[in-house]
Amino acid sequence: MTVTAREIHLKSRPEGLPTQDNFELVERRLEEPREGQLLVRNLWMSVDPYMRGRMRDRKSYIPPFQIGQPLDGNAVGIVEASTVPGFAPGDRVSHFTGWRDYALVDAKGATRIDEKVAPLQAFLGPLGVPGFTAYIGLELAKAQAGNTVFVSGAAGAVGVIACQIARIKGCKVIASAGSDEKIAWLRDKAGVDGTINYRTAGNFEEALAKVSPNGIDVYFDNVGGAQLDAALGVANDFARFALCGMIEQYNDEAPPPGPRNMFQAVLKRLTLQGFLVTDYLKRMPEFTREMAQWIADGKIQSPETVVKGLELAPKAFLGLFSGDNLGKMLVDLR
Amino acid sequence: MTVTAREIHLKSRPEGLPTQDNFELVERRLEEPREGQLLVRNLWMSVDPYMRGRMRDRKSYIPPFQIGQPLDGNAVGIVEASTVPGFAPGDRVSHFTGWRDYALVDAKGATRIDEKVAPLQAFLGPLGVPGFTAYIGLELAKAQAGNTVFVSGAAGAVGVIACQIARIKGCKVIASAGSDEKIAWLRDKAGVDGTINYRTAGNFEEALAKVSPNGIDVYFDNVGGAQLDAALGVANDFARFALCGMIEQYNDEAPPPGPRNMFQAVLKRLTLQGFLVTDYLKRMPEFTREMAQWIADGKIQSPETVVKGLELAPKAFLGLFSGDNLGKMLVDLR
Repeated sequence: MTVTAREIHLKSRPEGLPTQDNFELVERRLEEPREGQLLVRNLWMSVDPYMRGRMRDRKSYIPPFQIGQPLDGNAVGIVEASTVPGFAPGDRVSHFTGWRDYALVDAKGATRIDEKVAPLQAFLGPLGVPGFTAYIGLELAKAQAGNTVFVSGAAGAVGVIACQIARIKGCKVIASAGSDEKIAWLRDKAGVDGTINYRTAGNFEEALAKVSPNGIDVYFDNVGGAQLDAALGVANDFARFALCGMIEQYNDEAPPPGPRNMFQAVLKRLTLQGFLVTDYLKRMPEFTREMAQWIADGKIQSPETVVKGLELAPKAFLGLFSGDNLGKMLVDLR
Repeated sequence: MTVTAREIHLKSRPEGLPTQDNFELVERRLEEPREGQLLVRNLWMSVDPYMRGRMRDRKSYIPPFQIGQPLDGNAVGIVEASTVPGFAPGDRVSHFTGWRDYALVDAKGATRIDEKVAPLQAFLGPLGVPGFTAYIGLELAKAQAGNTVFVSGAAGAVGVIACQIARIKGCKVIASAGSDEKIAWLRDKAGVDGTINYRTAGNFEEALAKVSPNGIDVYFDNVGGAQLDAALGVANDFARFALCGMIEQYNDEAPPPGPRNMFQAVLKRLTLQGFLVTDYLKRMPEFTREMAQWIADGKIQSPETVVKGLELAPKAFLGLFSGDNLGKMLVDLR
């Protein structure tokens, strides 16, 4: 069986905010799966802010995308052909060869997933990397019952889960997002205790201090910039910051100045910890069990923003930087 | 017995860099020591960069100095009169009622010190708060054999000890300071492995990368600003930063922009930890034993910059911000 795959390739490296022109849809005849490979028909794929970093040609924790080559990223699909014991046609798998409808996948990087636990696309959201990121970040920041936890980018794929896990842990949660619709969701569905629309808040530090008059004990940072600065200003002594991402600056060609309140880290004995969830993959099975139970118990809501069709994957990706998504941004390839 | 004390008072709050005019020498007749008090004749007093923060009228981890009142800070002296069992005239003590020649000292804040261990003024330096700060900071940053440790402000009271403790731990040490004389001392007496004169280095990040081509695993930050930014840029994955002080900005009326390289904390999974040594006072006896042994073994050199006479204490303090001191800045009150 041979198939023709449709793939999104990196056509050129973006400068500043990416545009459609940086991407190209390419058809390619796939060879038969070699030893150790699966042929997977992707049903859903993920677009994530971190992918912007991989579009730069520079050394980092993960290799850059190459011009003229397909992008990749997390996807879920159905095994069509397998050369590997333990994987059979019809199996549902999560893997990292997305941005295409058919993929030859190294079986070592594929995980069988169970549609009875949750819909397939949930393995790209609450049960996947974003959910796991929220789980690990809150653990690194030692979020515990009674703490006030501030989550920025709270309506994003990681943020929505971070807010809800913090609530499950017995924390008071303050959430920031960029539209009234997102704020309403966070308040009414995620049940957070305080919200800030950063686009309309004016001085963010004053807004945060007002919504959280007793300070914050944990900051889950998805955005950086003014919100990180504000969190330093409002933090209580011995507060812990999980630095997960800084989407505000991903499209900047040179990094912007950092937080003026940096010295507060000394005065207040703060701990700021950057982390990449890929360092914690051994914890994934434990996380999956716990999250599956929370979902079964109705404790985790997981909003999705869906774009339909591989050709619109670049649009979905670009939408991450204009805040188009409430919850997980997904591309439906079915 | 009553005495007339000479005290340095805060005459006005400095704006920007303090000047002599912000200080005033005042003579005051001291009352007899009350219950729980000692009368101490101070022999040496300390001036420290953190005191600049106490000259601002704002809430912090330690109350602000008051206009028209004496400053205070660490000092060592001889008990002249005691109302307290366990303290007798002639005892040498370290306490926090400095900036004056005679002091009424709350005995609860006084520690007896032993001149046989080291000269009295060493209890304001390697055996005192600066040495203890270096000790705790390196511990928090998990400095261990084989690590490369970068110490900024390395010729200051904390820096000189941090460099040498790191060497004792088996670390490779990179030190920055602001004069050729300081650089020579760090290289020849403290035995550090690499040095940078930040005043003549040009682009500090490039200079640091050149002196430490294999990156840094630990950063002991005494200065903030461009050196913190450079440390973020040059840090290895999983490096630990002990944020001890940011002298570069102590005289700024508004905090300057922070490090542009902040996002490196995510990419490299860095931990930045602010600390105040006063949170660790329980560890002081253990530290004192260890440091006394290092001094006895000749493993710790401790340079001093001495200004003679209480009336010159403000000059000594101001000198901290122009880099006048190699090692501990002391005022000799004898």
